[in-house]
Amino acid sequence: MPYFDAASSAPLHPVAREALMATLEEGWADPARLYREGRRARLLLDAAREAAAEAVGCRPDELVFTPSGTYALHLGVAGALAGRRRVGRRVVRSAVEHSAVVHAVDAHRATGGTVTEVPVDRGGRVDPAVFAAALSPDAPSAGDAGPTGGERGPCDVALAALQSANHEVGTEQPVVEVAEVCREAGVPLLVDAAQSLGWGEVGGAWSLLAASAHKWGGPPGVGLLAVRKGTRFAPPGPADERESGRVPGFGNLPAVVAAAASLRAVRQEAAGEAARLRALVDRVRAAVAQSVADVEVVGDPVRRLPHLVTFSCLYVDGETLLHELDRAGFSVSSGSSCTSSTLTPSHVLKAMGVLSEGNVRLSLPLGTAAEDVERFLAVLPGLVADVRARWGAPATGPAALAGGRVEGPAARAAAAGEAGGEELGRAAEATGSAGPGAGDGSGQDAELVVDTLGRRCPVPVIELGRAVGRVPVGGRVTVVSDDEVAVVDIRAWCLMQEQEYLGARPVAGGTAYTVRRVR
Amino acid sequence: MPYFDAASSAPLHPVAREALMATLEEGWADPARLYREGRRARLLLDAAREAAAEAVGCRPDELVFTPSGTYALHLGVAGALAGRRRVGRRVVRSAVEHSAVVHAVDAHRATGGTVTEVPVDRGGRVDPAVFAAALSPDAPSAGDAGPTGGERGPCDVALAALQSANHEVGTEQPVVEVAEVCREAGVPLLVDAAQSLGWGEVGGAWSLLAASAHKWGGPPGVGLLAVRKGTRFAPPGPADERESGRVPGFGNLPAVVAAAASLRAVRQEAAGEAARLRALVDRVRAAVAQSVADVEVVGDPVRRLPHLVTFSCLYVDGETLLHELDRAGFSVSSGSSCTSSTLTPSHVLKAMGVLSEGNVRLSLPLGTAAEDVERFLAVLPGLVADVRARWGAPATGPAALAGGRVEGPAARAAAAGEAGGEELGRAAEATGSAGPGAGDGSGQDAELVVDTLGRRCPVPVIELGRAVGRVPVGGRVTVVSDDEVAVVDIRAWCLMQEQEYLGARPVAGGTAYTVRRVR
Repeated sequence: MPYFDAASSAPLHPVAREALMATLEEGWADPARLYREGRRARLLLDAAREAAAEAVGCRPDELVFTPSGTYALHLGVAGALAGRRRVGRRVVRSAVEHSAVVHAVDAHRATGGTVTEVPVDRGGRVDPAVFAAALSPDAPSAGDAGPTGGERGPCDVALAALQSANHEVGTEQPVVEVAEVCREAGVPLLVDAAQSLGWGEVGGAWSLLAASAHKWGGPPGVGLLAVRKGTRFAPPGPADERESGRVPGFGNLPAVVAAAASLRAVRQEAAGEAARLRALVDRVRAAVAQSVADVEVVGDPVRRLPHLVTFSCLYVDGETLLHELDRAGFSVSSGSSCTSSTLTPSHVLKAMGVLSEGNVRLSLPLGTAAEDVERFLAVLPGLVADVRARWGAPATGPAALAGGRVEGPAARAAAAGEAGGEELGRAAEATGSAGPGAGDGSGQDAELVVDTLGRRCPVPVIELGRAVGRVPVGGRVTVVSDDEVAVVDIRAWCLMQEQEYLGARPVAGGTAYTVRRVR
Repeated sequence: MPYFDAASSAPLHPVAREALMATLEEGWADPARLYREGRRARLLLDAAREAAAEAVGCRPDELVFTPSGTYALHLGVAGALAGRRRVGRRVVRSAVEHSAVVHAVDAHRATGGTVTEVPVDRGGRVDPAVFAAALSPDAPSAGDAGPTGGERGPCDVALAALQSANHEVGTEQPVVEVAEVCREAGVPLLVDAAQSLGWGEVGGAWSLLAASAHKWGGPPGVGLLAVRKGTRFAPPGPADERESGRVPGFGNLPAVVAAAASLRAVRQEAAGEAARLRALVDRVRAAVAQSVADVEVVGDPVRRLPHLVTFSCLYVDGETLLHELDRAGFSVSSGSSCTSSTLTPSHVLKAMGVLSEGNVRLSLPLGTAAEDVERFLAVLPGLVADVRARWGAPATGPAALAGGRVEGPAARAAAAGEAGGEELGRAAEATGSAGPGAGDGSGQDAELVVDTLGRRCPVPVIELGRAVGRVPVGGRVTVVSDDEVAVVDIRAWCLMQEQEYLGARPVAGGTAYTVRRVR
């Protein structure tokens, strides 16, 4: 049963299992104690720290182990900000950081800090020049009690944060260049290396680096934080002697030893696996784009992690697709809002401006069999088509709107004003408010208003697709929606469908998005 | 090789090992994911939470897993204080709480909170009536920005904290009574149950309870925090969806499952083992008091944990004794200042007012063999005598000062003004400042001043013991010391030796402690 979600958590590497078992026997005692069991534990801890530091590219005394990667990021952000309290309270971070960084910075904002978000391109990558501009005192920032531009000093940024590679779309960030930009500005750079550390060292003059062992095949319960010498750092929270005073509490030595041992082992395998998995991902990128109509393969196609690929399928409910893939034996992840407990879409896909509905992320563990990937590619198009049909999606593909003709059973149902599936029964179409020119044949003044208030992704876009088939070329469709993701997905739909996005305006209960049919 | 330090960390229970291995195979995926590996992990997590909640005596939705017991205590203190910010900022805690509680409360003080410390008796136990008085608005408190008594409202205590049993001396606290007192005052009680949870449920109407799995034979990396419904609680730090929003980061499911499974297993064994280990500890208490001269067995002899016993040996350097015991094959712990990296003595022994030098704690793991304990009792007196001789300690035992005679080789060396060992070479005796009556034979005005500035425990007390043998009955000895623990140990020495403690006064570089020889 193929598991394609290594970016969430990788199965335990055999070296990790072996090291864990050995250390449970030999290293359960307190490394701070003076007796033989304690000294043995101390030796194991010191060796693990040295091995991890070598893999990270720092000194052993610069590295501490934490209970998770999230903990390491929260600690890194809070410690660096406290250490540079006197410099300023502004944080500069990319728009596509992991939620652990986003939330740590939000907590800082809640106590009066400010944040400047560095946008990314449609591939999910920041531009070092844009990052450099965000470090300047004139850069705009958001925050509850932030100083205005005029009040800022010459260097008011306390911390910058940039991931080494994105966790949802795999895009590698220009960390070396951004680290140099930060060094010139005298600002410490925190690198979230959670997704990339298993693949190799993060170069550049970063100041802090965090990672998570279970992402590289180590055990859960271990993160690491490196703080390079010269970086001001004041650990938050109650005092404790463990881990250089930075991480309170009895450490998880068996897991720490297993994490360090597996990082070394994974790195050795990574070179060969990177090329093989990269080819598999290229195969997925090409095959999905070819075999699934109206799909958007997202993320930088070249500057990316070897094992990760993400695509979004128009008119597809992410949760239903994931469920179908699970039934077919494939475990994958999604950034669609309907698959998250908060019902909000991935902020990464939003920042990239790409379609978020029907989103699927494949992240291949080391050793993934090519046949499993082929099997996935073989079943995917059928499953997508099934889900679309079940949800009453309009016809897809290049010929969907050719000559104004509406094709396919679902599209026909839509054209007839029928709900294409049970779920659509609640959607209301308000044609009464169509413009005065509606139905006059010229099409220029035709307008169809579709009310999708209370309905979530992918319904607003499905309704849009159906309605566009019902107005002539030149006519307009207005979708009223209160779904947070609609703004992204409707714009993405216009790009994919080569229709014209006219804009949005607030209306009672939500927002009205208007689109002109141009083909 | 007997390991007698279960209170620091217990060896992994076989049930924990088995559960850990099984869950590493079955439960490595993210329990928040919808695919089969995630659902399997979720089932394991839910089952572990139910089992742990049953053992704790709370509802599953009241219990979260944390990365350590220290984390659970820090979270419990911070969350409860934030939740009751509007009620007040005063914390009431016992004087003998674990350092995790002490440091969490200190962090609260650093931001303007206040604390009232409830004293303990010489057995280390709080009196519920004294605890109740501390909850009243008139109770004194210490804090940087605390309100004065007059400014306080009728219920200004945000949180009370009391351990279920002490980690250093094993004394059980009257949690049920104190919980009732807190309930009446409307103050939530946080119970640190780290040392006792393996032995049984903590009764009473507590509001929060924390514990640590590696103390009961579970794996490291797991603590738990129960927050009963109706307790105001606001988790500090960045937002996260995991563990009811209270503990950020990817959980350590294999360790969590192992922790819950082993707690259940340990509880089943505890009933039989408690009686057996209690008898072994009674044997240690009696045998040590009989076979080692000038020893103080500390902690409540009856209301105590079954497996833990602590004693302090006069004129003994704790680190040297631990080293000798380790060489003899025994792993034990100590609250002596010289065995801690901070060079400060245990605040627990200090609060109890008992001798802290030469301190040894035995905490017997489940299954400890009686023969191992007997072997320990057989070697201990000789090792203590060796350490005393090596450090030039005065003679010990009831006859040590009989008739003013000074006995034993070390005592003879002391009487002759020679250092009893190499380590004492730096001690200076300043007899020049002896009072005007020194040496007049009456003894009433004889005073010997011993300068031990810069010397640490047990040197000040060794020098005191030596000097007392050199003044006549009625004469005084003044010890000048800058060792933090001297005040406790010199008073404890006076109690043990039946000599009169006259008081202390500040002098250049330290404190002068004066003692009158009365026998």
